[in-house]
Amino acid sequence: MSKYDHRILKNDPGLDEQFMKEAIKQAKKAYKLGESPIGCVIVRDNIIIARGYNRRNTDHSTLSHAEITAIKKASRLAEDWRLEDCTLYVTLEPCQMCAGAIIQSRIPRVVIGAMNPKAGCAGSVLNILEMPQFNHVCEVRRGVLEDECSGLMKNFFSDLRKSLKSNAQ
Amino acid sequence: MSKYDHRILKNDPGLDEQFMKEAIKQAKKAYKLGESPIGCVIVRDNIIIARGYNRRNTDHSTLSHAEITAIKKASRLAEDWRLEDCTLYVTLEPCQMCAGAIIQSRIPRVVIGAMNPKAGCAGSVLNILEMPQFNHVCEVRRGVLEDECSGLMKNFFSDLRKSLKSNAQ
Repeated sequence: MSKYDHRILKNDPGLDEQFMKEAIKQAKKAYKLGESPIGCVIVRDNIIIARGYNRRNTDHSTLSHAEITAIKKASRLAEDWRLEDCTLYVTLEPCQMCAGAIIQSRIPRVVIGAMNPKAGCAGSVLNILEMPQFNHVCEVRRGVLEDECSGLMKNFFSDLRKSLKSNAQ
Repeated sequence: MSKYDHRILKNDPGLDEQFMKEAIKQAKKAYKLGESPIGCVIVRDNIIIARGYNRRNTDHSTLSHAEITAIKKASRLAEDWRLEDCTLYVTLEPCQMCAGAIIQSRIPRVVIGAMNPKAGCAGSVLNILEMPQFNHVCEVRRGVLEDECSGLMKNFFSDLRKSLKSNAQ
């Protein structure tokens, strides 16, 4: 983990909340498209270098998860597949693919909003981010703006159920 | 799993070898670029619909693994993130990210050449492809043209060591 990330963690935990708010803005873009509201930002030296939100149905692509989009953009900017001095903020616990992409791109620190008990792979079904068997292990902070992040998901699925019910009538 | 895949599996196992040879051709393209020689093809109705090979260093992107590239192309062709009637052939056991992408895109059948004991996630470090906890479980065949697939990797790393040694002298 870079010195920078230690600084954030020890001296200014409020920065995590600030960057999670930006990830929530991304999640709201997904919501507007009728996609599960999941958003992500990647930060280096206190600057957001990449953003992403879930567009899986819109793009007809599994690879349009929020984290994958953000990692792709960050690597393009860094001209490197290694994102060793970055922190990734995501509103929902990553799936197995996104947790894998985080490890593969050697992101040292991950900040998560809400957990995803049924499918999450950063502590729920698996904990891919913190497995000593792999050649990279992340530092993970969970539960940052958790209520807001999980609230977005709950509202989305409540809207979806209402819409399905009204279409069925 | 689709009826088609059952037919391959039961009646013509030789088809798996035939498609793995095509994945090996892709792996050789990576080798020529100086990348770890890993190749992948995705097959539907006996036709290869997508190909990919490892270009991680060339593209400066973690997302340029062979399987991710092939999944991206197949989804573009299918205009669907679900690849429910496809078989994926890959020369080396997938990493955690690629195994995750296979599950996320609901590919029903995966055929693997060589295993990757230190980092593979289809039976070695993890077995993401066959976890009943997820909403999709693959059928996996391992060891197809294993010697040729692992031989490519061994030659690549042998060449790399020689090159590093000669540069150090």
